[in-house]
Amino acid sequence: MKTIHLNTRPIGTPQLSDFNLVNEDMPQVGDNEMLLKTTYISVDPYLRGRMMEGKSYIAPFELNKALSSGMISEVVESNLDGFKKGDFVSGMLEWKEYQTHNGEGLMKVDPAQASLSTYLGILGMTGLTAYLGLTEIGKPKAGETVVVSGAAGAVGSVVGQIAKLLGCRVVGIAGSDEKVEVLKSEYGFDAGINYKTTGDINKAIAEACPNGVDVYFDNVGGEISDGVMFNLNRFARIIVCGAISMYNSTSLPMGPRLDSILIKNSALKQGFIVANYMAKFGEAIPKLAQWLQEGKLKSTETIVEGFENTPQAFINLFEGKNKGKMIVKI
Amino acid sequence: MKTIHLNTRPIGTPQLSDFNLVNEDMPQVGDNEMLLKTTYISVDPYLRGRMMEGKSYIAPFELNKALSSGMISEVVESNLDGFKKGDFVSGMLEWKEYQTHNGEGLMKVDPAQASLSTYLGILGMTGLTAYLGLTEIGKPKAGETVVVSGAAGAVGSVVGQIAKLLGCRVVGIAGSDEKVEVLKSEYGFDAGINYKTTGDINKAIAEACPNGVDVYFDNVGGEISDGVMFNLNRFARIIVCGAISMYNSTSLPMGPRLDSILIKNSALKQGFIVANYMAKFGEAIPKLAQWLQEGKLKSTETIVEGFENTPQAFINLFEGKNKGKMIVKI
Repeated sequence: MKTIHLNTRPIGTPQLSDFNLVNEDMPQVGDNEMLLKTTYISVDPYLRGRMMEGKSYIAPFELNKALSSGMISEVVESNLDGFKKGDFVSGMLEWKEYQTHNGEGLMKVDPAQASLSTYLGILGMTGLTAYLGLTEIGKPKAGETVVVSGAAGAVGSVVGQIAKLLGCRVVGIAGSDEKVEVLKSEYGFDAGINYKTTGDINKAIAEACPNGVDVYFDNVGGEISDGVMFNLNRFARIIVCGAISMYNSTSLPMGPRLDSILIKNSALKQGFIVANYMAKFGEAIPKLAQWLQEGKLKSTETIVEGFENTPQAFINLFEGKNKGKMIVKI
Repeated sequence: MKTIHLNTRPIGTPQLSDFNLVNEDMPQVGDNEMLLKTTYISVDPYLRGRMMEGKSYIAPFELNKALSSGMISEVVESNLDGFKKGDFVSGMLEWKEYQTHNGEGLMKVDPAQASLSTYLGILGMTGLTAYLGLTEIGKPKAGETVVVSGAAGAVGSVVGQIAKLLGCRVVGIAGSDEKVEVLKSEYGFDAGINYKTTGDINKAIAEACPNGVDVYFDNVGGEISDGVMFNLNRFARIIVCGAISMYNSTSLPMGPRLDSILIKNSALKQGFIVANYMAKFGEAIPKLAQWLQEGKLKSTETIVEGFENTPQAFINLFEGKNKGKMIVKI
């Protein structure tokens, strides 16, 4: 069976050579363990951070060991109470075709309730990040203007839809005309900006947000975020959820110092990590499930087939090749 | 009688020629008015912002009109109920030796309770900014590490003392060895850093904060703040109260983009304007007054004599010539 190791720590944009496809023996299932067969692997921009060394909120990946991320697996053999053959589980698992597990930290998921990949998307960390980041830090009120960067991505597209459900004017920023069109036609955004072709991002945001920006859900950082800052309203809230524009930088990117904008607007800017809000998962998931069931939230997935294509799927995130949630199907 | 007008909008560091000392006739006191004689004028870094045009939380000063700031005045004549000759008032007033006023927005202050200038300092906007910024955004817990920039200034010196009263380890950053000494010997800071002579500000902060930084009260912005950011703890809170290092910049200063630090630490950064917390003044002032009376808070003032020296006193703020609160005595 196959597993994917981190071969070298990427410098700049990750390369296929940073990963290593390794053959291993099938693991033996011990007492109080089960054997899992991988069904879906989630690839996410934040994994780039774990590929670097250094102190962070989550330990870095080790070289020559399997990477891990959110995954869905099927129980194919079980010596563990509470899990039986044919069950599906969701959780942080290793990039291996098969692995044994004691069940800790895994959640059973029901393929009859929603398609399995949804548990990595809207009903998983993606949906929770969008909902809890927006509501716990952004606290949008009906009638306010919410701007989302990385708006056609997994988290961004859900943020925009939820903000619409909460009665806000929603403006999305994405990297192609096609994506901008999808924001409006599929997800109901009020306006969209293609940052790659708009000449003056400040002006484009000002035009799309005639009443200024009350909430900014930031997945990208950099110059796009500068443009939003120049259009901030008093008491604006900024959810700093991602900074994909900088993840592959080999030196610290520079930009204008905009603290005076925070002061004059009494604005709030807060880093968001979904794991800190676990206490709220129990109330968030039923809400997301209900919206999904009622057709009020649309789930978009870019599915890549084949375990060995996981590194390429991850690399593609940084070229914006995904629409919605990028998932590898085994 | 004399008044001080804004002559030109300063470019870069304010110059004496940006101000104009003008002679005016004594005003006539109408019905429901009183005549005020200026006693103390507060000069504060934030006034620099009001000298520029552009949208902000407070209207810009107009050219060829009197400037204004927090002041203490004596009632020398009154046709107004509730105010009598010999009373002292505190409030936003114009830079004039004498002025008439209808009493709106003014507060009577008692020279028997505290020295009059204290009502511009610890018992005025300075103390309120320090206390409410620290407690409402910073929310320091006993045992946490609080770093203060501009620590020997009016607000910073009070922030540090309050953080000590709340049981924190307190580290101050200031611009001379003498100031650093005062932080420790006068205000009880645990450690001080002279940013002008320390070679590596990141390292100096790391050494002064062996347990990292939980709360950062920022009065200055720029490279000093970058150094603090690199030493931030998880769930750190940053009060963005001032950015004096940038107020005189003629172009937007550049610096490293540090949003990834906010994300990985789930840190919060919020702009603070004391006027938004008026509802809390009533509970804050008695607390400050009690600490002052008990000798737990020390009030330091740099007093400049003479109405016509007000512009120079203001300019001196940007050279760090003040210790504690800079006040002009008439």
